[in-house]
This record gives sequence, structure tokens and C-alpha cells, in this order.
Amino acid sequence: MNLDPAGITLNGGKGLAKQLYLALRQRILATPDTYRIKLPTSRNLALALQVSRNTVVRAYDQLYAEGIINSRVGDGTYADGLAAAVPKPDARISAAPVMQQSSMLQRLRGYDTRRRMSDGPARAFRLGIPAYDLFPNEIWGRLHSQFWRHAPLAQMGYGDAAGSVRLRELIAAYLRQARGLVCAPSQIMITAGALHGIALCAQLLLDAGDKVAIENPCYPSAAAALTVAGAQLVGIALDQDGMDTAQLAQHADCRMAYVTPSHQYPVGVTLSLARRLELLAWAERHNTWIIEDDYDGEYRYDGTPLAPLAALDHSGRVLYVGTFSKIAFPGLRLGYLVLPPKLMPALIALRAMGDRHLPAADQAVMAEFIAAGHFQRHIRRMRRASRARRDALMDAWAPLFGQQLPLPKVAAGLHLSLPLASAGQETELVAKALAVGVEINPLSHFCLPGQNLNPLHRAGLALGFAGVDEASIRRALLSLQQAWL
Amino acid sequence: MNLDPAGITLNGGKGLAKQLYLALRQRILATPDTYRIKLPTSRNLALALQVSRNTVVRAYDQLYAEGIINSRVGDGTYADGLAAAVPKPDARISAAPVMQQSSMLQRLRGYDTRRRMSDGPARAFRLGIPAYDLFPNEIWGRLHSQFWRHAPLAQMGYGDAAGSVRLRELIAAYLRQARGLVCAPSQIMITAGALHGIALCAQLLLDAGDKVAIENPCYPSAAAALTVAGAQLVGIALDQDGMDTAQLAQHADCRMAYVTPSHQYPVGVTLSLARRLELLAWAERHNTWIIEDDYDGEYRYDGTPLAPLAALDHSGRVLYVGTFSKIAFPGLRLGYLVLPPKLMPALIALRAMGDRHLPAADQAVMAEFIAAGHFQRHIRRMRRASRARRDALMDAWAPLFGQQLPLPKVAAGLHLSLPLASAGQETELVAKALAVGVEINPLSHFCLPGQNLNPLHRAGLALGFAGVDEASIRRALLSLQQAWL
Repeated sequence: MNLDPAGITLNGGKGLAKQLYLALRQRILATPDTYRIKLPTSRNLALALQVSRNTVVRAYDQLYAEGIINSRVGDGTYADGLAAAVPKPDARISAAPVMQQSSMLQRLRGYDTRRRMSDGPARAFRLGIPAYDLFPNEIWGRLHSQFWRHAPLAQMGYGDAAGSVRLRELIAAYLRQARGLVCAPSQIMITAGALHGIALCAQLLLDAGDKVAIENPCYPSAAAALTVAGAQLVGIALDQDGMDTAQLAQHADCRMAYVTPSHQYPVGVTLSLARRLELLAWAERHNTWIIEDDYDGEYRYDGTPLAPLAALDHSGRVLYVGTFSKIAFPGLRLGYLVLPPKLMPALIALRAMGDRHLPAADQAVMAEFIAAGHFQRHIRRMRRASRARRDALMDAWAPLFGQQLPLPKVAAGLHLSLPLASAGQETELVAKALAVGVEINPLSHFCLPGQNLNPLHRAGLALGFAGVDEASIRRALLSLQQAWL
Repeated sequence: MNLDPAGITLNGGKGLAKQLYLALRQRILATPDTYRIKLPTSRNLALALQVSRNTVVRAYDQLYAEGIINSRVGDGTYADGLAAAVPKPDARISAAPVMQQSSMLQRLRGYDTRRRMSDGPARAFRLGIPAYDLFPNEIWGRLHSQFWRHAPLAQMGYGDAAGSVRLRELIAAYLRQARGLVCAPSQIMITAGALHGIALCAQLLLDAGDKVAIENPCYPSAAAALTVAGAQLVGIALDQDGMDTAQLAQHADCRMAYVTPSHQYPVGVTLSLARRLELLAWAERHNTWIIEDDYDGEYRYDGTPLAPLAALDHSGRVLYVGTFSKIAFPGLRLGYLVLPPKLMPALIALRAMGDRHLPAADQAVMAEFIAAGHFQRHIRRMRRASRARRDALMDAWAPLFGQQLPLPKVAAGLHLSLPLASAGQETELVAKALAVGVEINPLSHFCLPGQNLNPLHRAGLALGFAGVDEASIRRALLSLQQAWL
């Protein structure tokens, strides 16, 4: 392509050569690097621009010196030097200088981000997904439609870091009625989900090297979020009543504890009331924060739900993490934190220099979904469906594997786990399941190495039962029958 | 309210007193703390439960010891001990123990989160907001509707940390065509906006104490995000060609530089091509990262846009920050990062332990908005409108204040700034404007104290002209006329 000098204007007076050099360089560099640009001869350009040939020669010399143009005798002057100088992406990697390794980059090196078993459409027995096939898309779509139809200019600008006032009020009312957790809307911050809430608390409250007590086995993503914020994890073993708080007594210097008391992830036990009070007492003695991750607290099938730690908390040290991921759908990316009031200003400041807040529309639509009663109806629907799916698993499993691999009772939540005799058996059963398209998580995957652990949890299987319907569950078990027996 | 012992079942055998104690405690703690619960006498409860009176007495003793019940002679035994023990939120603050101050909490202490001038509906001359009153809500709402109507189960689960593949492909195509920036979709990560992208890069790449070169005056939120990630800011003065790169030469040990080259925030100058190449050369010499914040790069009114630093980058050190906030609307919370390929795995790992990814629906709707051509039409509409609003400001300002306070030419972006003679004059003009409901930002607000600064930028006014229509601009100027003259 020939360079077109039209449009190059030079201001008479000083520095014509420099002006021309800059104008030419700008044009060349702004051209996609797939083009080879042919420049006019210095004589022709001088004529076209009404400047001396010397001016053009000086400009060309400078461009040549910088490698932006190449001279080719007899063929004219070409600017493909730059095209050659800006490497294609793969060359960029090999030409890259030794990258500065911040401590964060070093910490992240161990994390495997390749495609995981749990990517792709939902299938039995994936962990962590609710029955989102039952989500009322039509209602949700209609609410979105209504939101946009009313031209909500006031909600389209930058908003409040703590989130929509209306949504926070509705969440406060919901928590009081459904979980016995009494808090002011001003204590609530809208987040992008449970993990986001955990990461924010970790970022806010932990210094490098701070000890954090955590259940072992535990939720790996939370362990990761705490670790990249600098935590040194102290794993505490579990029994049928949850985290073994007697072991906590040996640790007087934890900055924080992270627990999943409603329904332990991944084992499935519930932290008993006695243990809750012991945990709170321990935290009180040592001035320790507690992150209470109530990710599936709405799913209780038997017995009355226990009061959340946050409701039993006397001293403003429990940070309550909630999410809509397990009631609505994970791709929504909406949840909330209930904080001790004294922490809210700092967390607002932190959000204000990051993601700021969640999308206004999603917050408004969720608020309306709650206010119009759809949310409560949907929770009941989800609870019924999850119970039915639990029952389908129990009923179909018993005749097939009930003898050798009895399932525990499931009073709450969206998953269960069962112990196995050995790591070898665990590996074998998981691999055979995957080979027939059934996703089962090995319990050992959730165990922190070298930390206190109940021998019962060294090897086992974790199964989520809520993510697919009863027919899919039964089909999956038939496949397992083929694969395992 | 009387405690109803119905439903308390005790398993015969050992530990009846303990079982009873636990059952009573569970009931009491699960009751909203507004109720005073009257317990039966030990004699009556023993009869009702068919256990020995001693069993009940032991259970009551334990509850009393824990402060869960209070005995009142002659009035029966009440469990309002707990209600008193769980303080109301305000009491929680005063009873709170000395809070552990993490370094993050200490760093955040200086940040003011009270209501700011820029909260509330858009008004002249707020900075940072585009003409979002022109956003095609009906089209956007229709696209949302369509998304939900097609029951997109595959998009409702947990998604890819880098974001929607389709959206990333469309952004890559857009950047190539509109900004001359050639990159692979795999280099693009979807974020919650420019500031989120900046915060992620800072979190990923900075260690405590790392020096970061930044324009002075600068974008305060970016300065904050860099600082909380540990940066020590090195302010570099500006002139009419942008950041004065000659000053950079004095700094050989910066880990990173943060710049707004298309249209400096808040001064408004464009980083010249010569300066861009000098900046890149300096970064190359010292193995320094560059965050290029191209927050309003689509708004160019005169001349050809200069190639982004990311397009000129030879060595994979520029992190390009883009956002939809200034084209669509700020409340959308959607943007993107273009990264050197080698950084993508680490950033994916970091997102995977935080907010995970942006809502699937918003990404899908934006992708369709782009693919169907609405985005390009809207950019043109926004460019026209912003140019018209710029002109309205220029035309109306000149006769009123043009003598004393001449406005600069505005070749790009959504705001401008003008210098003032003194801090006193700045304070006076800003206050008088605010008193008549006109928002003008004092330039000194954006200056880093004690850092290198062009004397021209010590005091001044920064005005955003895109956020409200021409009539509002003219009205605002008439108010200013009253207030200032």
C-alpha cells in the first residue's frame, strides 16, 4: 500500500523535519501490521508537501534509524520494518524478558487452571451445584424486561459499594425470618458470591503469615483464597459433630477461623450447638475472627436448623457469608456478607478501589424477585427437589452398593460423603466412575496434607445429588453398577 | 412465652441430663431474642418428660451456669439471660474488643467513604460519566429477554474465569479494528470495569514497597488500588504531551507504571507518540510493567488516534485496561483486560479464588449487543453526543468566562481541565459552583502531595461535559454566571 501524504499538515516555521518525521511515524504505526507501506521518494514527497527535499531526507533518516522503515534500493522505501519489529503473540512469549516474580505470582504457580472434571454441562454427581434446571427463567427474564422498560437512569450510574439498599433490606428480613439472624441492612454488603465474600474478608483482615484454623478436609477454593491473602492454614479434624473444637484449644494464636457449620463441605456433618458455642468461646478468648460460610444453609430436611454462629455471636467477630448461587444459579454471581458494623467502612473503601459494586440491574431484579414472593416459592421448590433427588440417590444406591458402601443420613445440604478403606480404592472407584461419565469427587482431594485429620476422612467419595434430576441420578447409578461391579 | 416441652425426645440410657440440656439450649437459642421464655419448674418438666427431677435440675444448672437462663425466685425460671447477652448492634460496637488491625485495615483507615459530591443523579459537570442517558434501554432489555427465553442452562452454571469466549472474540475483533490493537481472544479477561482490572493487575504483580510511576495529577481510585496492593507511588509531572518521560529517567527501580495515555485523567492531554516510545523504552530498560488505562479511548474528535501502548509493545509488558462503563453505562460493571499471554494462567487462578467471573447473562447480552451491530451504532451515537456536549460547553462558556478562564481545545475524551492562579481561587470557585448545584472538581484533589508536579496543575478545575445534555449544560453555566460573577 502506498502511503498517502494527503492530510499531513506541517506548520511553517521551525522543526519541519521533526514534524514530518512525527506525522509519518504516526501514520505508519497506526497501520495494521499486516500491510507493507511504500513511501514516496523523498523528491516526490517534498513536492507534494511543498517542503525542501532535505526536510524529507532528514525525516526519512530518523525513521530509518529507529527501524520504522527499511530502504530498498531500486524498489522504493518500505515501512515494513515495524511489522517485523512487532512480534506475533507467540514470538512475544519467546522474546519475553525474565518476568518479575511478585510473591503473588509465586504463590499462584501451584494452581492448576486446566480444564477440570467439573466444567461443562451439569451431570451426576457434581458437587456445589443446586437444582438450577428448575430456575424460573421466564419470571427472571420478565423482571429484567420490566427493569429496562422503566428507563432506570438513577440506577445506571456508579452505585453504592455496599450494594442496593432495597436488596439489603430484603436480605436482612429474609435472614431474620429464615435463619434467626438479626442484623441491620447497613451490616450487609452485596458480593459476587460466597467465595468473593471469603476473599474480601481474607484480603481485609489477614497479614502474611497469620494462622487461620480451617476444617480438614475443607473447601479448596476457600483454602486458596485464604492462602493467597497470606494465611498459614491450621487444619482441624472433624467428627460427627463437625470441627473438633477440643483441638482448637491447642491453638492460641489464630487470627481467623473459617468454618462451614450448617453443612460441612465436603464431609456433610453439621456443627453441633455445643461445638458452636465452644468455637465462639475460643474465638473470644483469643480475639479471633470467624468466617461462617453458610453456602447451603437453606437446605434443611430434618430437624430444626441451628442458630448460625453469627446469631450466637456476642462480640462482633463473626463474618457471615451467604450466596444466591445455591438457590438461584451459580452463573448469577450474587451473594452477601453480613459484617460486624465496625468493619463496614473499611470494606466499602476496599470495594471502592476494585470491582466497586455488583451490576445494578442484577441487584434490582433479585430484589424484585424476593419482594414479589418468587424467591420464597423458589426456595421451597428447590428444597423439595433437592430432597427428592436425595431420596432418589438413597433409594437407588441401597440395593446396588448399600452393603459395601452404606450412605450416611443426609439431614441438610446438597451433597454427602462416605468413607473408603484406602486411597487405592478411592482412586479406582473415582476413575471407573469418570470413565462412564459419572463425576465423583475423591475425598482425599479436599484434605490439607500434613494436617490433623480424622482417619475416617483419609479416603472417601463426595457426591452432590442436587444438580441433575432423579432420572439422571438413576441412570448414573446404573452406569456405576456397570463400572464398579 | 412458656417453653413447650412437646417434641423434646430423650434417648433412654446415658447422658439424659446432657441431652435435655442440649435440647433446651437449642430451643432457647433458636428463639428470636425479643421473647422472654418461661421454663417449667423442674418438677413439672420431669413429669412431662418422664425423667427424674434430678435430671432436670442438672440440665437447668448447666444452662444457668452458661448464662442462658436466669432463675427468679417466686417468678419461675426465665431464659432471657441470652436475650440480654446478645447485644443489639449498637451495643455490639461498644462491647467490641480491641479489633486486630491488619495492615490492610490500617492502610484503609485514611479513606473517606462518606457520601460524596458525585453521588446521586447525573449533573453538570461530573467527571467520569458518559452520556448514558442515551443508552438504548429498550434494545438492551430485549436482548436480556431473549437470553432468558432460550433457557440457557449451559450458561447458568459456574463459568470460565477469563469470561465468555464469544464476548472475548468480539472484543478482540473490535480492538483490532478500532484501536489497531492486535491480540488473541485468549489474551482477554472480562472484568467488572477498568478499576477492577487495575486492582487485579496490582494484586497480581506488586509486592509491598514496590515503586509505581504514576502521572501527577492522577486518577485517585487507581492510586488507591495500587497503594493498597503495596505500591509506593512515584508521581511524574505532565506537560502538553502527557507524562514527562524525561523525569522517568531518574527512576530505575519502578516495578510498574500506570498511565492514561489516550486522554489523561484528569488533565486531559494525550500522551504523544514520541513519549509513548520513550515510556516503552524506559520500561524495557528496567523490566517494568505498564498498565495502560484506555478508559475513554473511543472518544476521539480530531486527528487520528494514536496507537495504544499495547500495540507498540515489543516485549509483553503492557497490560491494557478497557471498560464498557464509558460507552454503555457505569452501573453495568463490565470491562476487559488484555494481558501478555504469560500472565493469563496466574490471573485465571486469582479470579478462580475470588469473584470467579462476571455474570453469564451480562456477558452474553453484551456479546449479542456487539455482534448485532448495536454497539458500533451506539459508539457513534455517543461520540456525536459527547462532541455536541463538548461544543455546548465551549460555546456557552466563552462569552461568560472565556476572558478570565479560557478553556483548552478538547480533541478527545469526556472531560477537560483548566489551570487557576491559586489554591484560594480554586476553593472559592468550586464552593460557589456547588452552592448552585454545579459539580466541578478541584484539580488539586487529584495531585499526589509531595511529588513532582507541573506548577500549572497545582490548582485548577476539571469538568466532565458528557454526562448531561446540552440544555443542562447551558443551564449549569447560567447558574455559574450567577455564582461566579
